[in-house]
Amino acid sequence: MKGSDMDMDLTYRDAPRATDGGVVKALLGGTNMFRRDEIDVAVELIEERLAKGAASGYHFWFADRAGSSHCPVGYVCYGPTPCTVGAFDLYWIAVDSACQGRGLGRELAELAEVSAAKMHGRRMYVETSGKAQYAATQAFYRALGYTEAARLPDFYDIGDDKLIFQKKL
Amino acid sequence: MKGSDMDMDLTYRDAPRATDGGVVKALLGGTNMFRRDEIDVAVELIEERLAKGAASGYHFWFADRAGSSHCPVGYVCYGPTPCTVGAFDLYWIAVDSACQGRGLGRELAELAEVSAAKMHGRRMYVETSGKAQYAATQAFYRALGYTEAARLPDFYDIGDDKLIFQKKL
Repeated sequence: MKGSDMDMDLTYRDAPRATDGGVVKALLGGTNMFRRDEIDVAVELIEERLAKGAASGYHFWFADRAGSSHCPVGYVCYGPTPCTVGAFDLYWIAVDSACQGRGLGRELAELAEVSAAKMHGRRMYVETSGKAQYAATQAFYRALGYTEAARLPDFYDIGDDKLIFQKKL
Repeated sequence: MKGSDMDMDLTYRDAPRATDGGVVKALLGGTNMFRRDEIDVAVELIEERLAKGAASGYHFWFADRAGSSHCPVGYVCYGPTPCTVGAFDLYWIAVDSACQGRGLGRELAELAEVSAAKMHGRRMYVETSGKAQYAATQAFYRALGYTEAARLPDFYDIGDDKLIFQKKL
């Protein structure tokens, strides 16, 4: 698949490579939006997928910049929510800070939604912080058609609520 | 610790044994409240604890009937919620169907809450189904001081909402 609305030449793939963990670690670090322990979890999900395949329950789309390096500049991680019939979680979505604002995040989210629907997904859920620092993230999900399903006060920390967004697929 | 308000002679321990997985599998099956895939997850958490120790993030209290067998008749599984500061999840709590209605569930939940508070837990969260079949479970949490923090329609399945209860520790 080729990105059509981008001014970069991108290709999309759903199979992680052994090098993706390191690239994603640097990419997430560069956004200044995630703590180190959160980044460690993101890398673990890629490693679990590489080790266990689809049985890991973690699915991906990577957006690679075309050219010799084929280095991902964005990715999304999603999967069926355990012990549910048709609920999916959008676990991670991130775009390299140098490539933001061009619709790549939307493209990745929509790839995850379409893929989840093909796996009989009924609803996609995504969790984020209610802090002002995440206002752009919250606006991103609302623009994609997600609605706020719940707010858990002080969940992540004192003064740091958890928002749960959901979208029907 | 000895159960004081029980008409059974019970002892409590927080260290899982290699035999607990099999006993818990039978115990959960006997309650007729859990699907097979849910029971598999419960057993996996015990195995992960046995393999990785406290680093697994899964903590337990088992209530054993005193006597030669020391067979658990109830247990609770809880732990710190990843990527949070002070949120805890009550992952599993179950009492052998022959031993229900005697306060053992409350005893186990309170042991988990006190232990979580010692680990700097601020809030305990527990998720359950909104279906009528789980009315007793919902009433159990409310009686323990949990309040409904969120309801996610059709989360587990169509017509099967997820309720998120929380309690300040």
